[in-house]
Amino acid sequence: MFRGGYMGMICRIDLTEEQYWIDPLPYDVARDYIGGAGVAIKLLFDLLPPSVEPLSPNNVLIFAPGPLTGTSVPAASRMAVVTRSPLTGCIAMASAGGYFPAEIKFAGYDAIVITGAAKNPTYVSITEDQVQFRSAKKLWGTNTSDCQMLIQEELKESNSKIACIGPAGERLALISSIINERRAAGRKGVGAVMGSKKLKAIVVRGSKKVSTADPDGYKKAHSKLLRAFKKSPSLYPGLGKYGPTTAVEVTSELGIFPLNNFSATGQYDIADKIGGYAQHKDIIRKGGCFRCPVACHMYRMVSEGSYAGYLSCGPEFETAYAFGGNTGVSDISAIYAADRLCDEYGLDTMSTGATIAFAMELFEKGILSEKDTDGLDLRFGNDAAMVAMIQKIAFREGIGDILADGVRIAAQRLGPETENYALHVKGLELPGYDVRGAKAQGLNYATAYTGADHNRGFASQELFGTTSPIQVDDRFSLEDKAALTKWNQDMKMALCDCPTLCAFILSDGDTLLNDAPQGLNRNLTELRIQNIASLISSTTGIELSPSELLLVGERVNTLARSFNVREGISRRDDTLPKRLMEEPIKAGLSKGAIYSKDQLDQLLEEYYGLNGYDHNGIPTRSRLEELGIGYVADELEAHGIITK
Amino acid sequence: MFRGGYMGMICRIDLTEEQYWIDPLPYDVARDYIGGAGVAIKLLFDLLPPSVEPLSPNNVLIFAPGPLTGTSVPAASRMAVVTRSPLTGCIAMASAGGYFPAEIKFAGYDAIVITGAAKNPTYVSITEDQVQFRSAKKLWGTNTSDCQMLIQEELKESNSKIACIGPAGERLALISSIINERRAAGRKGVGAVMGSKKLKAIVVRGSKKVSTADPDGYKKAHSKLLRAFKKSPSLYPGLGKYGPTTAVEVTSELGIFPLNNFSATGQYDIADKIGGYAQHKDIIRKGGCFRCPVACHMYRMVSEGSYAGYLSCGPEFETAYAFGGNTGVSDISAIYAADRLCDEYGLDTMSTGATIAFAMELFEKGILSEKDTDGLDLRFGNDAAMVAMIQKIAFREGIGDILADGVRIAAQRLGPETENYALHVKGLELPGYDVRGAKAQGLNYATAYTGADHNRGFASQELFGTTSPIQVDDRFSLEDKAALTKWNQDMKMALCDCPTLCAFILSDGDTLLNDAPQGLNRNLTELRIQNIASLISSTTGIELSPSELLLVGERVNTLARSFNVREGISRRDDTLPKRLMEEPIKAGLSKGAIYSKDQLDQLLEEYYGLNGYDHNGIPTRSRLEELGIGYVADELEAHGIITK
Repeated sequence: MFRGGYMGMICRIDLTEEQYWIDPLPYDVARDYIGGAGVAIKLLFDLLPPSVEPLSPNNVLIFAPGPLTGTSVPAASRMAVVTRSPLTGCIAMASAGGYFPAEIKFAGYDAIVITGAAKNPTYVSITEDQVQFRSAKKLWGTNTSDCQMLIQEELKESNSKIACIGPAGERLALISSIINERRAAGRKGVGAVMGSKKLKAIVVRGSKKVSTADPDGYKKAHSKLLRAFKKSPSLYPGLGKYGPTTAVEVTSELGIFPLNNFSATGQYDIADKIGGYAQHKDIIRKGGCFRCPVACHMYRMVSEGSYAGYLSCGPEFETAYAFGGNTGVSDISAIYAADRLCDEYGLDTMSTGATIAFAMELFEKGILSEKDTDGLDLRFGNDAAMVAMIQKIAFREGIGDILADGVRIAAQRLGPETENYALHVKGLELPGYDVRGAKAQGLNYATAYTGADHNRGFASQELFGTTSPIQVDDRFSLEDKAALTKWNQDMKMALCDCPTLCAFILSDGDTLLNDAPQGLNRNLTELRIQNIASLISSTTGIELSPSELLLVGERVNTLARSFNVREGISRRDDTLPKRLMEEPIKAGLSKGAIYSKDQLDQLLEEYYGLNGYDHNGIPTRSRLEELGIGYVADELEAHGIITK
Repeated sequence: MFRGGYMGMICRIDLTEEQYWIDPLPYDVARDYIGGAGVAIKLLFDLLPPSVEPLSPNNVLIFAPGPLTGTSVPAASRMAVVTRSPLTGCIAMASAGGYFPAEIKFAGYDAIVITGAAKNPTYVSITEDQVQFRSAKKLWGTNTSDCQMLIQEELKESNSKIACIGPAGERLALISSIINERRAAGRKGVGAVMGSKKLKAIVVRGSKKVSTADPDGYKKAHSKLLRAFKKSPSLYPGLGKYGPTTAVEVTSELGIFPLNNFSATGQYDIADKIGGYAQHKDIIRKGGCFRCPVACHMYRMVSEGSYAGYLSCGPEFETAYAFGGNTGVSDISAIYAADRLCDEYGLDTMSTGATIAFAMELFEKGILSEKDTDGLDLRFGNDAAMVAMIQKIAFREGIGDILADGVRIAAQRLGPETENYALHVKGLELPGYDVRGAKAQGLNYATAYTGADHNRGFASQELFGTTSPIQVDDRFSLEDKAALTKWNQDMKMALCDCPTLCAFILSDGDTLLNDAPQGLNRNLTELRIQNIASLISSTTGIELSPSELLLVGERVNTLARSFNVREGISRRDDTLPKRLMEEPIKAGLSKGAIYSKDQLDQLLEEYYGLNGYDHNGIPTRSRLEELGIGYVADELEAHGIITK
């Protein structure tokens, strides 16, 4: 049925009964959802009834690479990890790179779907045509790199690729991650879902080839993309030299690098201590995902001082924010140590840093004292306390037990006076952009189907001045920001999360295809979409025009929205933390900026209109039908969410 | 020339000039020295002029597996790491297992000989017929498991085997080790020699087969050994179930498990907290060296508390002693953490623990204060201070800079009042047997060519009641102890360190061959020697009778002694720490025991006589000639050490 790109098979594993099935990937699902997040969200919507407790055996956990994964397309070894998030209650979609995603394809699968829960700690070993259920009783408790090493030793397969959880996921920390190699599917508590299933690890190994349906067309499209890569100044030297961390410098200059739990943004500058250029001296190795020529993840090492010996596979920008500015810590070595510890324990660096920053503010305000912190002097800037707290969170020791579930739940447990310091949207802690000074980025936080997620509709136009058909000149203005947010969200889904491709291919705006005639932004964007549509078509054999590809983006985002709506999400959840809406930024280039409720309301109205949602943020039947997913309208109607 | 077992080649690498040569292994060297420590000590004696500064480029560092390594003989993947020790000034011979030794053979070599020193941090990659010199500038500073991972990534060879140093070896800590996989060539500062050569790592990879010269004879001898393994109660369940750590229980019962830097031996018992049975619950995996059915190295994990997350590939008995009893620490989790940290930093666990115990006693006596320890409360039993001190030693921070060179040099730097607390022989810190209650074991410490080394002539007869032709009933008595020590030293060299085989094949005394007729100890021993001689003969094609094999042991030990004598070692160095000679053990089953100077002198006289040494401990020409190494007498004569 499939001529290339797809392996045509889904590996479905039920942990309760220790059974597995190798199901076909339906052709129309591949055509309409492409792969990755698209296919995974479609499967989740269809498989999961509403109100399933995320940490119950009934939740479903899906790992889906895309049709380009495992081919020679650069930056395509990505996968979507999709489940109902225990942190947000919404869809969790966490994306990870490395070699594991490509290996899923080599083992012969387009997706791995996990259901049920094991009675005892288990790991699954997936090869071509076979799944083995193996005891992980003895592996329970291991850090993620030890776990991977022990499994490779046990199976005598040093080339197998492994995704696993650490002690944090085992303890159902809602801010726990899944780690493959040194890469993370970090956010939204996907690690806790794996932990709730008592699934320590997934091992994959295979030798199948991912074929291309139209080798000539593929070669042409592939060369075009590679040429664009080579000419992109943001990939080379940019990301290829410094990794993504120079965003610290950019956002600091704009006055939107969050400091001290967003209470001091713009008031001081630590970019020279923890930014991408400061980190450059510590890089000892560039690491790349399978077949990626950019190789943007940097190994950085601490050579002396209290954290000597720590090697971090990172930290990327968001980690530098979370453990740096947001906690007030300016010792870059401590940030490396924190990054490594989170990777080892299987904790999301962003949510962990943000949650510690929350606790630090409570400590500064006298709401928490050393009695609550086992003696840790949890002031902003205390790197030793920050690093010590990570272990407490991973193992749920002392106050770590409360912080392990993120700021929303922690605030519920610590009392109403703590709520205003808990910065999140839909339960997901804020990323490292103070969106009081970046309206489209903020609207994306308020509306993204995963919560406050920089990875859904990243507004690079506002932040880095990249170009797009919707051009913006002023990051404080509301003009065109609703349209821009929708554009960014749909583009990201269509061009990255489904095929699957790394978000960094978007980082350069249209210069990515700068072998095209200069001057016409719209045309350049079209050339890019055309190029990726050609890549998908020539790889898979599925005819796909650029406009059809963009429609996939909108279709999947609307389906994801519908999933959330079915779980009770509506306009009241599309919001921002009170601090951002009421307290102005006090200094710097964004001084005075707030993201007022009025501003947000105005943008939401516009955004809903463009998306075909009603006033309450509920997708309308007509738009769902236009997108070819009328069955979703039926489903929402059956639950009384939309009416005839 | 060689029909099997040997690869016939030595890989000689000069780091100064970045050159390498593949030299033949001379037949007579193979015949007279077998392999492993034998061949390596022969090469070192011949290559190294006297008085070469151990940390200068002129020192030579040799890695030598034996003729049985890489075959299907169980427990044979061992190698001797031989150099002039910077810690003792004597020969360093440190033995390690794992997969690296076998891989040296698969790459086609019987030994790797390193000379010179690189200008900049370097690692060498050794394959069949080729050596590459690669920059390790970026790897400098990495922990040993990160280093191995990064090299495997860089070379895209996940199956290569790597021996490397950590931060401690880089900083020339004289108690630093070399780590391959999770195994250590731990003692005598071999890591510092590698560090002084700016050699971060040696990578080997090969696919050659190690053949057998007489397959039928080999099969017979191999089956016999395997059968003996299977019937041995000390291997199964013993070592195979608990690892070597149950010696804590045995020595505690005998009242010779050292406590608080040998100041409290017998005064209390912590075997139930840190012994082999206590550790059993924490074992999560058994690990074996290449082709070893016993698999005695145990992965133990800390699941909760301050050290949660630490996985230790160990600790073996000596580590439990060094970080447990000797420091007074009874928290087994802290010992696991210490063991892992030492492996990561590339520190010898025994010398590190013993050196911290020394510092603890100085702290208790008020000679050191918190001012000297950066605020660490370095009392006996303080596990947190012990663990924190390990990092200071590895990175030479604060007092760690002094402790990094072991107790002898630390005492020289800290002043004469500290000397009596520095327990060592020839600079090597004491192993975990209080030899006041074990005379042959003590004589071995005093005379072994590597210093106070449990691995040269381990007196299992005294400690575990194993049998041998020289039978002893009383561990306090001097009777037959000189002969026993010589026997143990020569047996160990002949049966283990040369072929090469793991010392644990000796652990069971003669029951190892208990398919032989019962009752005749002498005959059983002969059967064992016969078996190993047959293994070597049938593997290599070199005719070797049991008596010739034992003679190899004596030959190599006498050669090693001659090396040390050439460096100025004599009777005055064959001694024991003053504490053991003057302070009686205060409680327990060895209460009242001392190892008096008179006792030692009596045993030395006897031991020298048996070995053909003169009254000063210098080998005589006549014995050297009897052993077929008259050229050594010429050499010692040329240096005025022996006269015509």
